[in-house]
Amino acid sequence: MIDYPIVRVALLGAGSVGAQVATMLLEHADELAARVGARLELVGVAVRDTTAPRTADVPAELLTTDADSLILGSDLVVELIGGIEPALTFVLQAINSGADIVTANKALLATHGPQLFAAAEHVGAQLYYEAAVGGAIPIIRPLRESLAGDRVNRILGIVNGTTNFVLDRMDEHNETLESALAMATQLGYAEADPTADIEGHDAAQKAAILASLAFHTVVPLENVYREGISSITKEQVESARNAGYVVKLLAICERVRDPATHRESVSARVYPALVHRAHPLATVHGANNAVFVQAEAAGDLMFYGAGAGGRETASAVLGDIVSAARRRVAGGPGVAESTHAALPLLDIGSVTTRYHVTLHVLDKPGVLAEIAGIFSVHGVSVELVEQGVCEPIAPFATLVIGTHEALEADLAATVEDLVSNSVVRTVASVIRVEGS
Amino acid sequence: MIDYPIVRVALLGAGSVGAQVATMLLEHADELAARVGARLELVGVAVRDTTAPRTADVPAELLTTDADSLILGSDLVVELIGGIEPALTFVLQAINSGADIVTANKALLATHGPQLFAAAEHVGAQLYYEAAVGGAIPIIRPLRESLAGDRVNRILGIVNGTTNFVLDRMDEHNETLESALAMATQLGYAEADPTADIEGHDAAQKAAILASLAFHTVVPLENVYREGISSITKEQVESARNAGYVVKLLAICERVRDPATHRESVSARVYPALVHRAHPLATVHGANNAVFVQAEAAGDLMFYGAGAGGRETASAVLGDIVSAARRRVAGGPGVAESTHAALPLLDIGSVTTRYHVTLHVLDKPGVLAEIAGIFSVHGVSVELVEQGVCEPIAPFATLVIGTHEALEADLAATVEDLVSNSVVRTVASVIRVEGS
Repeated sequence: MIDYPIVRVALLGAGSVGAQVATMLLEHADELAARVGARLELVGVAVRDTTAPRTADVPAELLTTDADSLILGSDLVVELIGGIEPALTFVLQAINSGADIVTANKALLATHGPQLFAAAEHVGAQLYYEAAVGGAIPIIRPLRESLAGDRVNRILGIVNGTTNFVLDRMDEHNETLESALAMATQLGYAEADPTADIEGHDAAQKAAILASLAFHTVVPLENVYREGISSITKEQVESARNAGYVVKLLAICERVRDPATHRESVSARVYPALVHRAHPLATVHGANNAVFVQAEAAGDLMFYGAGAGGRETASAVLGDIVSAARRRVAGGPGVAESTHAALPLLDIGSVTTRYHVTLHVLDKPGVLAEIAGIFSVHGVSVELVEQGVCEPIAPFATLVIGTHEALEADLAATVEDLVSNSVVRTVASVIRVEGS
Repeated sequence: MIDYPIVRVALLGAGSVGAQVATMLLEHADELAARVGARLELVGVAVRDTTAPRTADVPAELLTTDADSLILGSDLVVELIGGIEPALTFVLQAINSGADIVTANKALLATHGPQLFAAAEHVGAQLYYEAAVGGAIPIIRPLRESLAGDRVNRILGIVNGTTNFVLDRMDEHNETLESALAMATQLGYAEADPTADIEGHDAAQKAAILASLAFHTVVPLENVYREGISSITKEQVESARNAGYVVKLLAICERVRDPATHRESVSARVYPALVHRAHPLATVHGANNAVFVQAEAAGDLMFYGAGAGGRETASAVLGDIVSAARRRVAGGPGVAESTHAALPLLDIGSVTTRYHVTLHVLDKPGVLAEIAGIFSVHGVSVELVEQGVCEPIAPFATLVIGTHEALEADLAATVEDLVSNSVVRTVASVIRVEGS
């Protein structure tokens, strides 16, 4: 047996991911030692309650409620508790004790990322977080390393499995949101309280992380514009399908010129959008995730896989543990977050995109001209007008108006005028079109 | 201006990739310096003929025919010549002079990889080759680092853009191979002599590289079983489409049990195969590439993007240059190839997969029983029998026989018996089914 050096690994949390990480560290110990050039010794697993049931077997003697002591005796601290506290305190404690960090905690990174990166840089510790976005899908490392010599211009991500499952059910089985969500809950894809997923909070955290990384700019969570899918109807999904689109909740990170200042800026936003059926993202079904990246030289790339799941996420955590341990043994360049670009952040009102606006209008001569006039007054150019699929009762008709690229603020002003116009009964739906 | 340390970069070759790398190094110099923590100084570009036309502007004063002197004065040598010689001599020379290497040379790696990795390890030099497989698509780094704590079980790769373009045209436009290939040549996707692509040599080199990396085992190119697409007919593609499949040239790398020894082994092979329309690989159109990876914990992952092109490949090369330079400045763990697993290599005869066999047979009673008997004798279990789409003239009928998983050797023996049987006019096509 080769006499490898030891890297002491502490796990914080033994939920579905943590328990799997523990199992894999123990079961693959020899193989991992050969790959790392060091033995990864699992020194303990900190939990709140050592008697709680686990999804995978963690040897009882490794469980402890004393996270503080565990952290002090470790080279590498793997934080899989989730949420802000006590994760934040533990991670800072670990950094200050000289340990490197592996975390899957998107909420922590999206809200306290700069603080953590600064603390780590101060003491020369490293912070790895491949599992925080896209579960098993390698996306952090490709953005940070593979594309380090390129310029990322845009990221479109399906980064929340629950909402993708729900929207995919609505599209493939013609279900309502409620019924699709009930199925997601039943299959374990949605939590008892699905708000964080359905309202786009989870996706917004991931958008903040991706945008910060891709554009070398601090993008605070509060600067990520966010709309969830709770108002998406069966009719919208059906209408999208008939027009050759599918509705997807997208995390969008873009390098764009601010239309006012002409300065290169960053937009990070989350909302349900129409994606054309021919786009690679349209083929992402079920609870899967995918991140579509457009880079200046590399062109279009897509990274696809399981966005959640204990074992799947554990794979990404293990990859980070191996990277961290290799560096621990050999020294070398870290992965300090680069924010050298420090681009300004763009307000949602300054974003341009295309829109499909569905209106119920009076079915009489002159109405189309009146409607077209409203769009025109606000500088929103109309690309297509179609009769809607679901007809309301007479004397109303349904119109779907597709616009060219328009400024979000101009579209909002258009909608405001439409709502107050007497030929318009309701603005039934406004949905953006992305990925063109 | 920050006083960065200098990393001296030499380019060997200024073809479509090399010229782009030079341009990007010069144009993005400041941005790259901020990301690397060192200034990447392009000290020269070695070419055979300094007066030859270039696809991108390389400053004339950087061009030189004296590769030897250039290599001696460099920290990082980027080999973009392609082929075996003089690339091999230059790379060994660079390694021995203490430089790190970035290369996109799949032929060199597939044939001389172990020699190069050993030479590099001997002097502590590093060898990066993200661009050798899948052009712009990050696949080497994810396999080596992101999945380092997981176990890869199978890779199915569309790794040759030319053949994917040809097969996609045949599928979408009902073209013959000749006509689709002519279009590929016209659009610049195929070389004047397309043999290396069409016959699967290019894909086989990439399979050797991927299998070696994924399974920590030396997989020499001559152990990669290879069939090209030159015999694929319009009728096969049409028949596949009718059955819900698309024909793709796949590079397949598998961890499997040898049926004879029951030892875990590695199979690396390249051939055209039927891929079900619902499989993510079926959605890869045109000259794009994609690598589908199945790992024990991560599950199914797919990496998609442009598999070729000067700028696209340059993006991957730049990513490697940044990684190499960061390590050059900070020291640290290298990317020495791990061959610790040293698994045995499986012969194609010992591979199991599913097959679709198309036969022209006498159209008379008892024929099906006779045919079924031949499959049965060799232990090949039949899953489905269908009437073929293109009927030959009477008294013959077309049968498509789909098998369950069967041993390649057993299927070969079955086909041999079918060919010599009097009720069989011809075995029109034998094609494997993958991705299930």
